[in-house]
Amino acid sequence: MIVNPEREAANQQVIKIFKQAQPVVVDIKPAREVIPGLTEDMILHAGPPINWERMCGPMKGAVLGALVYEGRAANLEAAAALADRGEVRLEPNHDHSAVGPMAGVTSPSMPVWVIEDRANNTTAYCNLNEGPGRTLRYGANGPEVIAGLHWMKEVLAPRLREAILRRGGLPIFPLIREALTMGDECHSRNKAALSLLLQALLPNILSTNLSSLEIKEIYTFMIGRDYFFLNLTMAACKAAWLAAESIPHTSIITALARNGVEFGIRLQGQWFAAQSPVVNGHYFPEFTAADANLDIGDSAITEASGLGGFASGGAPAVTGFIGGTPEELMAANYEMYDITVTESNHFALPILGNRGTPTGIDVLKVLETGIAPFVTTGIAHRLPGIGQVGAGRVRAPMACFQKAVELL
Amino acid sequence: MIVNPEREAANQQVIKIFKQAQPVVVDIKPAREVIPGLTEDMILHAGPPINWERMCGPMKGAVLGALVYEGRAANLEAAAALADRGEVRLEPNHDHSAVGPMAGVTSPSMPVWVIEDRANNTTAYCNLNEGPGRTLRYGANGPEVIAGLHWMKEVLAPRLREAILRRGGLPIFPLIREALTMGDECHSRNKAALSLLLQALLPNILSTNLSSLEIKEIYTFMIGRDYFFLNLTMAACKAAWLAAESIPHTSIITALARNGVEFGIRLQGQWFAAQSPVVNGHYFPEFTAADANLDIGDSAITEASGLGGFASGGAPAVTGFIGGTPEELMAANYEMYDITVTESNHFALPILGNRGTPTGIDVLKVLETGIAPFVTTGIAHRLPGIGQVGAGRVRAPMACFQKAVELL
Repeated sequence: MIVNPEREAANQQVIKIFKQAQPVVVDIKPAREVIPGLTEDMILHAGPPINWERMCGPMKGAVLGALVYEGRAANLEAAAALADRGEVRLEPNHDHSAVGPMAGVTSPSMPVWVIEDRANNTTAYCNLNEGPGRTLRYGANGPEVIAGLHWMKEVLAPRLREAILRRGGLPIFPLIREALTMGDECHSRNKAALSLLLQALLPNILSTNLSSLEIKEIYTFMIGRDYFFLNLTMAACKAAWLAAESIPHTSIITALARNGVEFGIRLQGQWFAAQSPVVNGHYFPEFTAADANLDIGDSAITEASGLGGFASGGAPAVTGFIGGTPEELMAANYEMYDITVTESNHFALPILGNRGTPTGIDVLKVLETGIAPFVTTGIAHRLPGIGQVGAGRVRAPMACFQKAVELL
Repeated sequence: MIVNPEREAANQQVIKIFKQAQPVVVDIKPAREVIPGLTEDMILHAGPPINWERMCGPMKGAVLGALVYEGRAANLEAAAALADRGEVRLEPNHDHSAVGPMAGVTSPSMPVWVIEDRANNTTAYCNLNEGPGRTLRYGANGPEVIAGLHWMKEVLAPRLREAILRRGGLPIFPLIREALTMGDECHSRNKAALSLLLQALLPNILSTNLSSLEIKEIYTFMIGRDYFFLNLTMAACKAAWLAAESIPHTSIITALARNGVEFGIRLQGQWFAAQSPVVNGHYFPEFTAADANLDIGDSAITEASGLGGFASGGAPAVTGFIGGTPEELMAANYEMYDITVTESNHFALPILGNRGTPTGIDVLKVLETGIAPFVTTGIAHRLPGIGQVGAGRVRAPMACFQKAVELL
């Protein structure tokens, strides 16, 4: 690699931004009140830009469900007509300081986590996680899914919000660091992180005027839904990288993000996309690879931040969910040091003697080594209306990096 | 090793007992109401039998504190006079279906966990853990320690008891199994196990008539005191092995237990003891090896059950507390397969592809291989009244096994 002083300086600046970040969850608010540029006719989605016609099944399913949830359509058919007439503005979360797992659909009245990073003066957003299985983010959109979203808006969000306001904000990266010592890689395994979140917030929840039964209702919803924490991780990572998106000349990407058709990387705030890959999947008993959509979701920002596949050597139990073996994960985790520019100050693995996780994916290093970023991920059914069918491991397509390098 | 059919059959019976065990915490009761043979003039202690004169500093400190707590003496001086006059009956927990960490002092009015194993028709007991630092079990006995014990009896125990009774019992081994996937080895690291316990009980606690503030008071006591779970693990292990203590001819030990002067093993319900070893310690900043007592406590029953040192390869983060490296722990963990007769059905390590942990320490295998059981443990100050000074790793003394083999 030829040393380019301008690029070197830019990369150092980008890494400084990420390393000094201290994202804190400070509030839960309706998306329309906080997400910059989110208009009433708009629905945000995961991954790079894509229009309605080209969207994959689960993303279409989620958009239709969101239109019903928002009251813009009385039913899914009416919602489809609305979309077909071009009356729904569709834009990526990432272009609005936001992120969303899987289909990543974010609509104006959804409550979103508000994550502030005062070190970099940034704020990022992510909706609340519904849990596993038949959920909007996996493309399901039946009445029970819509009812679940209403319950989250009307019951869960206000109660949780009280606890967060009472606490005065909760830093997210220290919770993730602790979770990494407890077998999570914080993309496809979030069990410890959720436990730590609930432990941190519970004294605050118990200090509100909520009754024990009101607390029990939201507590029993959250336990057992380990992915509830993932959305916080994602928004915290987005907040930490946001200021880096406007640094020119850098060769470090700030996100990996998929819309289910294309896999995109973000370099200098721009999208570079190629066809989304097939996930090497581990399927729920009733499903097979034939049911799987291509790779989808903004959640791979975790990998760009030294988590997920980039921390999977410390999470052998995740193999029960995503397949593979502990040895495979450790080998892939080690490979990631070859395509990154630094080791994390935020995140470290005890199994590696507390070595920081590989951080700052360099487009040039990816191309030079031929090693593609390793991602752990959930898998959506390829048809709208169904939901999650499994989880697995996938590599980012090299073609994204081949396109991005032209910018440098 | 010469095959001995009588011993083989006995060993199979012992392993069957342990493997079929399903210990369940069913209640919290005053020790005097439930521990068999515990009389009002008696105080139970950790490890093999020892008289007052020979006891180590922290155990003496704990006995004196317990006499004040019980109201048998107005102050520590009066308590010492009582003990010096021989008016305190001192017997091992293990001879009363009980266990206790460190000094292991159990007195009649202390609340104890009641753990039933219906598969083997056994019940075992352990007191409630006070947390780290200046605590009775580490030999501290000042007014704040005694006040803490009273608070546990009068506030914590009755509130927790309500939740447990409402739940109708909580199986302990499945919680331990899950904690092993989350970086605990369940002797010197119990962080995940405590989280899982609180998650399991909280919906029940929230269903009682306790106010939010009453719940908050006990919840905030328990979080951050990760060892709170250890006493449940210990009593569950004791319940699981109890029926095996009366099987003749077996060469499998059912416990490792130390009184701070001697290190004992239990074979066929009998004690075989040798001098307690010095722990290879990792000390808190204000202490050094010169402050350390010899190895102490009943907690090493965890190692006899396939936990602690026998599961430490899956707990790299415990090195931050006990010292050593992840590689050392993994190597020692592997060695333990050479001195045990089976692999656990209860406990498994994801890092080993969910291989069961080494279980059933065979006296003959220990002697044949020269490999001593590997134990992770806390370290008490050698003087009474001070408390914990660090934690570390230790090997059981071979002399215990050399004595025990004479029984076979």
